Amino acid sequence: MTIAGENLIGGTGRRGSNGALRGLAAATGEALEPAFGGATASDLEEACALADAAFDTYRETSLEARATFLEAIAENILAIGPELVERCMAESGLPKGRVEGERGRTVGQLRLFAAVVREGRFLDVRIDKALPERTPMPRVDLRLRNIAVGPVAVFGASNFPLAFSVAGGDTASALAAGCPVVVKAHSAHPGTSELVGRAVQKAVADCGLPAGTFALLFDTGRAIGQGLVADPRIKAVGFTGSRGGGTALMQIAANRPEPIPVYAEMSSINPVVILKNALAARGAQIGTEFVAALTLGAGQFCTNPGLVLTLGGEGYEAFASAAGAAVEAAARQTMLTNGIARTYREGVARTGAHGEVRTLAGGTPGEGGEGAALFETTDEAFLAHPELQEEVFGASSLIVRCKDEASLRAVIAQMEGQLTIAVHLDAGDEPEAKALLPLLEKKAGRIVANGFGTGVEVAHAMVHGGPFPATSDGRTTSVGSLAIARFLRPVSYQSLADALLPEALRDANPWNVPQRIDPS
Amino acid sequence: MTIAGENLIGGTGRRGSNGALRGLAAATGEALEPAFGGATASDLEEACALADAAFDTYRETSLEARATFLEAIAENILAIGPELVERCMAESGLPKGRVEGERGRTVGQLRLFAAVVREGRFLDVRIDKALPERTPMPRVDLRLRNIAVGPVAVFGASNFPLAFSVAGGDTASALAAGCPVVVKAHSAHPGTSELVGRAVQKAVADCGLPAGTFALLFDTGRAIGQGLVADPRIKAVGFTGSRGGGTALMQIAANRPEPIPVYAEMSSINPVVILKNALAARGAQIGTEFVAALTLGAGQFCTNPGLVLTLGGEGYEAFASAAGAAVEAAARQTMLTNGIARTYREGVARTGAHGEVRTLAGGTPGEGGEGAALFETTDEAFLAHPELQEEVFGASSLIVRCKDEASLRAVIAQMEGQLTIAVHLDAGDEPEAKALLPLLEKKAGRIVANGFGTGVEVAHAMVHGGPFPATSDGRTTSVGSLAIARFLRPVSYQSLADALLPEALRDANPWNVPQRIDPS
Repeated sequence: MTIAGENLIGGTGRRGSNGALRGLAAATGEALEPAFGGATASDLEEACALADAAFDTYRETSLEARATFLEAIAENILAIGPELVERCMAESGLPKGRVEGERGRTVGQLRLFAAVVREGRFLDVRIDKALPERTPMPRVDLRLRNIAVGPVAVFGASNFPLAFSVAGGDTASALAAGCPVVVKAHSAHPGTSELVGRAVQKAVADCGLPAGTFALLFDTGRAIGQGLVADPRIKAVGFTGSRGGGTALMQIAANRPEPIPVYAEMSSINPVVILKNALAARGAQIGTEFVAALTLGAGQFCTNPGLVLTLGGEGYEAFASAAGAAVEAAARQTMLTNGIARTYREGVARTGAHGEVRTLAGGTPGEGGEGAALFETTDEAFLAHPELQEEVFGASSLIVRCKDEASLRAVIAQMEGQLTIAVHLDAGDEPEAKALLPLLEKKAGRIVANGFGTGVEVAHAMVHGGPFPATSDGRTTSVGSLAIARFLRPVSYQSLADALLPEALRDANPWNVPQRIDPS
Repeated sequence: MTIAGENLIGGTGRRGSNGALRGLAAATGEALEPAFGGATASDLEEACALADAAFDTYRETSLEARATFLEAIAENILAIGPELVERCMAESGLPKGRVEGERGRTVGQLRLFAAVVREGRFLDVRIDKALPERTPMPRVDLRLRNIAVGPVAVFGASNFPLAFSVAGGDTASALAAGCPVVVKAHSAHPGTSELVGRAVQKAVADCGLPAGTFALLFDTGRAIGQGLVADPRIKAVGFTGSRGGGTALMQIAANRPEPIPVYAEMSSINPVVILKNALAARGAQIGTEFVAALTLGAGQFCTNPGLVLTLGGEGYEAFASAAGAAVEAAARQTMLTNGIARTYREGVARTGAHGEVRTLAGGTPGEGGEGAALFETTDEAFLAHPELQEEVFGASSLIVRCKDEASLRAVIAQMEGQLTIAVHLDAGDEPEAKALLPLLEKKAGRIVANGFGTGVEVAHAMVHGGPFPATSDGRTTSVGSLAIARFLRPVSYQSLADALLPEALRDANPWNVPQRIDPS
């Protein structure tokens, strides 16, 4: 497949005339061919108009047709073959195994949503039958289903160039819900974006769907992305990225004449709590495993463990020295972009220079990519210095050595919202863990026992979300089948004749979807 | 039961020292005894601190305990007896039948949520069992449940002094979800508020729940209500009222360090579309029925039909003259407050004086309450004058006589979001109705065939919501069992030992709630 450097709008490729951007080899900074023309305001206008025009047709595709479309996207992505893997490796600096694994995840995600669509549970069909004999007032016939909210803007993420980008989790769940999608490509992987975008575009055409069901825009500045969120035809936004970027989009969305929801997954340091008995029994083992999670993918996962909370007692030295040794032994890794690497080095230097922080291991710049870094501070210092809670994106982590369980709890209570909190515990720690749980539930979307938040299973029971600022909306998840709920709204139909009702609401249930019927 | 004029905080009654307000007899404007002391900033602080302290205990009550509590509130409201009905009649001007009916609705709503809680479906339990043999990676054990979002602020509504006030739909659904509630009483019915508040407070005590589970505050200005939304311990807001009031709360919530959701039900004119054959066959009958809906409760329902869209052809004169006659024949009614009546008269006068509007019937001030008003305009005028879309709260409605079906559709397409849209149709109108439906679905939360939006059934399939500005969040409903979803967020538990898991997630399923298990 050719990478043409084009925006994908209305089933065609169009060279944008609003400046140009290029993919850069993450390892060397070398500019890659070709140049990508930036979308203009009129490209944006056309993409939104087409998405709006596609909406009524696309949202009423049969469940089978929509599921087949999602599967066709998956097939088309696989059909690109090694070219996609190579381009993605070059643009992201991620190794082949990771990129292939991420492609598998992306394809698996599309297939999961195909299954979710076929099952039809997401429609939440409820039928309250008329009760004409009810006193004092008869009851009318009421039927409810979820419908798609409208065209959705998706912002590709730098750290998942496949699984949270052009055909990633946000796009898959929005398309599954019945929403056309306009993607703003992330500038860090434009070639990967175009290849995947063409795979989606081909699936749209092959499945006979309206051309406006999908568009991909390159933005040489910020105007196209911001204009996309402000466009009145866009009804929801999916975003994964920085806190600054996410909150800026939240503000734009809240200040529209018609405010819309923004689902931004932003900032999390994913605390790891190590309880007393676990620390004493297997401090060294936990230390080694912790650093394996910390350094996975150069620490560029949203669920990267950037904070450890533990007691200073038995096992602490074993934990800290094993973790320190593992950090020293860890290979240097290429980060996603030069900008991300620079920000990482600055964050590590800032943490290391903090008056209340001691460097335990790593943290020194060098050749061949970025190394991990491990720091230590006390509960008092952590509580007194809110800046120590700020995320350093990459393989840097801070151990907070707490003097007792009460102070450990005080540290958690002061923390902002998180995607995940991990707790390491042995049998003797269960009472303490049980006492901590209510606090952990209020602070995070996922609680992990004896493991780490990295490794986000795409499943029904996954929550990849959490209270602000982990996400903009702690009532939702961006990974797993529940992600579809972000792009739905309920509509109730009162006393409509069967022939006028959507298929899913009819008595004969021709779509064979779950119907909650009252009286049953 | 005595009305003491007190705020209800922490299981006690406390006289507020921040000025005073009184209930006024709606019919006469006479001040009613006693005076209510306004809550101070320290009262607000205490109510929020107690709600926060109550949260962990209250949200983990068993389903049975929580359902029993909701039923106890219902019993205690009924136990107040005629005193509540009389006070509510005096403060609201609503007739006895309506107040008793609304009390029945309030009690029924609490009992519905008790049933929803017992059923446990709202927990959305999902269990993805570990698959240790899966390749290339084993799957971990993941379990999801919904938990309560945290303490909720509820603003009592003027137009439903029982069913959408202190123990109304917002409070019932938040308590059902497991959220403590702090109510800001509406100043139009303080006595009714205190009586119901004491009924809730007694249920809290009788059920042995933490005293902070419920509080009621009187606000002599706006500072307490605004401070409540800004308080960091409050995690969501329920509101029914004006567009100005709702959007002000949305702004406060969006600008908090931690933004929170506001569920504001605000502004809707609930268009009634009359299609050609229905108009020709039974114009006069529809006209009479329409005015019955329009004048119900002095037109003070959120779902009041403030707009009629129809064609000017056969049956139109019969419709308009029957509707006009019914408006002239309708009895004058006392509105909820003097302020609401004044705003209604101003709105009617403004509409009547509009250069593009013709007065069909009513609209003249007089003795003994407010009369209904019926106006007529054209599609061109309606499209050219956005101010004609503004809600006139009360029994005033505007007929837009459209020259053809295309112009009728253009009028709908330009409308803002609505709670309800009603369509009157006969068999020959079905093709036109089918063509209109996609547009109606995008504009409203509920579509009614051959009826009117008034009469909001409290049921599983009800949506009392709709796109902005009908509500702040068109993904939700404030009436019916689905209203509980507003106050929940999902949490995922990974690899937790059975003893650490919440009851609803355990393999033995001791709470006997629906569990979605994969693989099943």
